[in-house]
Amino acid sequence: MTDNPDLKEYWEARPLPLPSVSIDCVIFGFHANQLKILLLRYKNTDFFALPGGFINQDENLEDAAARVLEERTGLQHIYLEQYYVFGDKNRRFDATHHELMNGSGIMLRPGHFLLNRFISIGYYALIDFSKARPKPDAFSASCEWYDLDTIPTLIFDHDFILQKALHTLRANLDEKLIGLNLLPETFTMNEFQSLYETILGEKIARSNFQRKVLGLHMLKRLDKKITGGAHKAPYLYSFDSKTASKS
Amino acid sequence: MTDNPDLKEYWEARPLPLPSVSIDCVIFGFHANQLKILLLRYKNTDFFALPGGFINQDENLEDAAARVLEERTGLQHIYLEQYYVFGDKNRRFDATHHELMNGSGIMLRPGHFLLNRFISIGYYALIDFSKARPKPDAFSASCEWYDLDTIPTLIFDHDFILQKALHTLRANLDEKLIGLNLLPETFTMNEFQSLYETILGEKIARSNFQRKVLGLHMLKRLDKKITGGAHKAPYLYSFDSKTASKS
Repeated sequence: MTDNPDLKEYWEARPLPLPSVSIDCVIFGFHANQLKILLLRYKNTDFFALPGGFINQDENLEDAAARVLEERTGLQHIYLEQYYVFGDKNRRFDATHHELMNGSGIMLRPGHFLLNRFISIGYYALIDFSKARPKPDAFSASCEWYDLDTIPTLIFDHDFILQKALHTLRANLDEKLIGLNLLPETFTMNEFQSLYETILGEKIARSNFQRKVLGLHMLKRLDKKITGGAHKAPYLYSFDSKTASKS
Repeated sequence: MTDNPDLKEYWEARPLPLPSVSIDCVIFGFHANQLKILLLRYKNTDFFALPGGFINQDENLEDAAARVLEERTGLQHIYLEQYYVFGDKNRRFDATHHELMNGSGIMLRPGHFLLNRFISIGYYALIDFSKARPKPDAFSASCEWYDLDTIPTLIFDHDFILQKALHTLRANLDEKLIGLNLLPETFTMNEFQSLYETILGEKIARSNFQRKVLGLHMLKRLDKKITGGAHKAPYLYSFDSKTASKS
């Protein structure tokens, strides 16, 4: 077992969690036209992972998801949304679990609950990464934001879990963006379009985009932005709190 | 224990399922402007329930959902979609489980796996009820379609599970309807609108509806329907297989 008193306590002070069910959190971070993803690297390994964990016997699923995320990344008050349950019969990762725990000086005994099959419930969130200060937990050497197009290979089936979350985010972007504080209080149509383009990973024709988002009735048009040359000043927009209430 | 040899075999021939996880299936049936829901009534009780069950240790989650539905209702080849995970810490229904099983002559011993806490994964489907011939399993006195506005009270938290499925179905109706064979090969705009109105449970203004569904590019306009009076003949539509491929 481990010499690390924090980890000893982690394993020994807790009753076993609810069997067979785990949670994985895909935290997308957006800021200034960049989309990132939050990953843990396990201590003394090159293993990267989504932050995840388990459900206490007397804990609501949603509370467990929030706690798991906070314990592993330090992030609080993140609105997590269920998006998919990963239930492949081969979700059992004995060898990798041994290596992960070895990195923290822990030998898993045969029959340890980590070595069982788990059905994992995927949660995702989209936040402003400039406002989030993640920090690693006792098992992790780092907890950092990675650019979506240069992420390392992930352990278990976490690559698949991440891709499924990205697909879900893109499919639900209209609803997800409202009220998420990813933009300043007021913004131009160009800024709004950049946010969509970054998350969707593709360019959008300006006229199509404008027609589409105005059709969703989520925006309120304000005064023109004050710039030097008045005749080209763009309009400012804000989310319309009367109509943009779906998220 | 039970005298019924079928049930004896059911409980004794099977290894225990994966702990803590159950499945519940909300099967919506549509036909000729009627929306119904499929419910089981347990033998010798007035307890109505959604068809549900458990996951075998060596079984994929999706396969388990299909098997559970078939075992309990006889329905095969139903496309089930995950929609929500119900994880309240109080999902533990000892007294009701005892009564349900008593109805089939089964006494649950203390510690029986049914008496544990379960996290339930909700699946739903929308099918043509005129083509489905459900039949009850060994625990059920009946397996029948009920009108959505006259359903009996359900056991456990099944009322909530049903309402959440209905909400999801309504929110995703555009995507769900495509290719679901709930309409004849060709149909009029009126028939299509009736389907929406029935499932949404409200009237829709005809002009709004037509603009909306044509904007989704899911329909192909065909020749006019041949009726007696030619000048009022409505156009026929079919789903456009080139564009209507999201479901």
